[in-house]
Amino acid sequence: MSSHTGDVRPLDAAQLTYTYTTTPREVPDVKTLASNKKTICTDHMIVASWNVESGWSAPELKPYGPFSLLPTASCLHYAYECFEGLKAYRGHDGKLRMFRTDRNVRRLLMSAERISLPQFDPDELEKLIFALLSVDGAKWLPKSRAGDFLYVRPTIIGTDAQLGIARPTEALLYIIVGHMARLDTPTGGKRLLTNPDDTVRSWVGGFGYAKVGANYGPSVLVSQEATRQGYHQILWLYGPEGDCTEAGGSNFFVIWKREDGKKELITAPLDDQLILNGVTRRSCLDLVRERLKDELEVTERKFTIGEIQKAATEGRLLESFAAGTAWFITPISLIHHRGKDINIPTGPDGTPAEITGKIKGWLGDMMYGRVEHDWARVVPEKELSV
Amino acid sequence: MSSHTGDVRPLDAAQLTYTYTTTPREVPDVKTLASNKKTICTDHMIVASWNVESGWSAPELKPYGPFSLLPTASCLHYAYECFEGLKAYRGHDGKLRMFRTDRNVRRLLMSAERISLPQFDPDELEKLIFALLSVDGAKWLPKSRAGDFLYVRPTIIGTDAQLGIARPTEALLYIIVGHMARLDTPTGGKRLLTNPDDTVRSWVGGFGYAKVGANYGPSVLVSQEATRQGYHQILWLYGPEGDCTEAGGSNFFVIWKREDGKKELITAPLDDQLILNGVTRRSCLDLVRERLKDELEVTERKFTIGEIQKAATEGRLLESFAAGTAWFITPISLIHHRGKDINIPTGPDGTPAEITGKIKGWLGDMMYGRVEHDWARVVPEKELSV
Repeated sequence: MSSHTGDVRPLDAAQLTYTYTTTPREVPDVKTLASNKKTICTDHMIVASWNVESGWSAPELKPYGPFSLLPTASCLHYAYECFEGLKAYRGHDGKLRMFRTDRNVRRLLMSAERISLPQFDPDELEKLIFALLSVDGAKWLPKSRAGDFLYVRPTIIGTDAQLGIARPTEALLYIIVGHMARLDTPTGGKRLLTNPDDTVRSWVGGFGYAKVGANYGPSVLVSQEATRQGYHQILWLYGPEGDCTEAGGSNFFVIWKREDGKKELITAPLDDQLILNGVTRRSCLDLVRERLKDELEVTERKFTIGEIQKAATEGRLLESFAAGTAWFITPISLIHHRGKDINIPTGPDGTPAEITGKIKGWLGDMMYGRVEHDWARVVPEKELSV
Repeated sequence: MSSHTGDVRPLDAAQLTYTYTTTPREVPDVKTLASNKKTICTDHMIVASWNVESGWSAPELKPYGPFSLLPTASCLHYAYECFEGLKAYRGHDGKLRMFRTDRNVRRLLMSAERISLPQFDPDELEKLIFALLSVDGAKWLPKSRAGDFLYVRPTIIGTDAQLGIARPTEALLYIIVGHMARLDTPTGGKRLLTNPDDTVRSWVGGFGYAKVGANYGPSVLVSQEATRQGYHQILWLYGPEGDCTEAGGSNFFVIWKREDGKKELITAPLDDQLILNGVTRRSCLDLVRERLKDELEVTERKFTIGEIQKAATEGRLLESFAAGTAWFITPISLIHHRGKDINIPTGPDGTPAEITGKIKGWLGDMMYGRVEHDWARVVPEKELSV
């Protein structure tokens, strides 16, 4: 993966040190969490620093708190930053589980490479994520909150105090865990607005496939406009034909009857690197290929807004949903494109229709321990120590 | 510009408070400055915070030092950051000058809008920049260093402690001043490598025209590859025809004899928003239009790498240079494109040839006070107070 020569130390979870907080905070009740505008994090975080000469420091688990960053820190100027978003799920059996973490840690490695941040062994990062949750999980997501989750955010930032634009020689990796509002499917299903012609999220030869900060901030201006007009998110189209790519920060799926009569689940391909290689996306595709192969073909290819319009007009449009860690699986009931609405069938009040519901159910069952599956791994939790 | 209603306070330079450092630092000698890997900033900085409900705080001039930022701060995750780069020049007449600052502060406002950061009156920001230099200029760029400069970096970052992706409701504006290595023209002139087909800097519908962090970090991976191969910077081409856009972080100019025999200064246009609207770029165009109009036509239009190759083959390629605040005016002697070199005439050892030299001379004369000009404004300096 990376070549560690001489004294350049690799990231090593076995070196993790533990410094517990002496001022543990109270876990807010569900109502406070839902209304709070700031993300409330757990008692601890894990931090490891890196520099090009000595490599990674021993990771430290320590009290959650602010960083001290010089105004010249390169992450504040040149978007040297990448991250992951994962959830830890409190199961109905009382156990805490994480879902396909191996994919997230590998994706962070890829994102770090794209944005010139340091390399690391992803398995070590995975161990660190589990270590933090094994300390804070029991208190911050108690067994009484079965069916709820914590949000886990591993992040890497460039910290060189140097205004010249250059490859980072210093960086900080950190893992924080917080409560995030549950982003439930809006009543009536999600309504999308296609992006205006003069704003594109990502492009061939860019970095739309990497989870780097530079993909997020710049898209907020148009997303705000969608909200102002009463839509939930942007459906990002690409190119002169209007290829469908992502829906907000989620992957975008359509289920339709093809012109040849065959039922199909379709989503954008990865090969032109326009979209994020979503863990939920991959899981949807894998599950449908495995469990619904007799009734549904699964296709990853470019498809256009025009094809969706045509399918709708001809009564072949069956379902659509967005898939991602933050929003999970949310049915899409409407796409507004250049002055025209495309209506998409859902269940009652925008609940998932047949296929969407099956996929959501299967994944939720794994995450919350109703069904044991390789993709969901139990976090061994420590006894409350603070 | 922005609508300040009710209690939302505008940015107001008249409210600036002064808290001087009690631990002034020594100004390093020129040799130390040149060899230091970190940017050495002056004794003070100016900071103003903003939130969506109350608007801008009273700006504070205070000792330079680290910020305390929560790990959830939105600038560390979603690239909510934009900046400007300016220089303060110590003139041969002993005065300190800034160059067309009004353009930089307006561009920062535009960049802030693009990345969903708060609006402000740019004239107030300009006053703050002058206020900081009037305090730190005399000590950190003494009259004994005529012909040298300080680098000025106004920056805005989003500071919401909130992992949900949303328009920032809290932000920090800060101005820091530091020493930057003089980026002199390399011996033999600058050698550029065209970007590989699979990497694009900016795109139509993106944000290549805004000075946001998201334009910088992602381009470093390919720039490193150019350095590894012995080139100084990337010449960023766009689209199937290979339109010339920027050279590294500078605007790109060519002087050639057109096929109709007319001499022309050509650079990429602004209308498709692929490139930064450079202050040095604009100044070059204005000066040549005014002072060389009888010998040189000035054109802002798309032009391709193929046109440059053809002009070189036919002996019509006269000069080329990159223009920007950081590198100022640097002659380009070679472009390597898809395995072939394009050689470009320069003066001896890569020094500026005729037209490039004239432009560089005119601008340098204004900046360093050899000639008085509206574009260069003197900073009224305080007596040393620390």
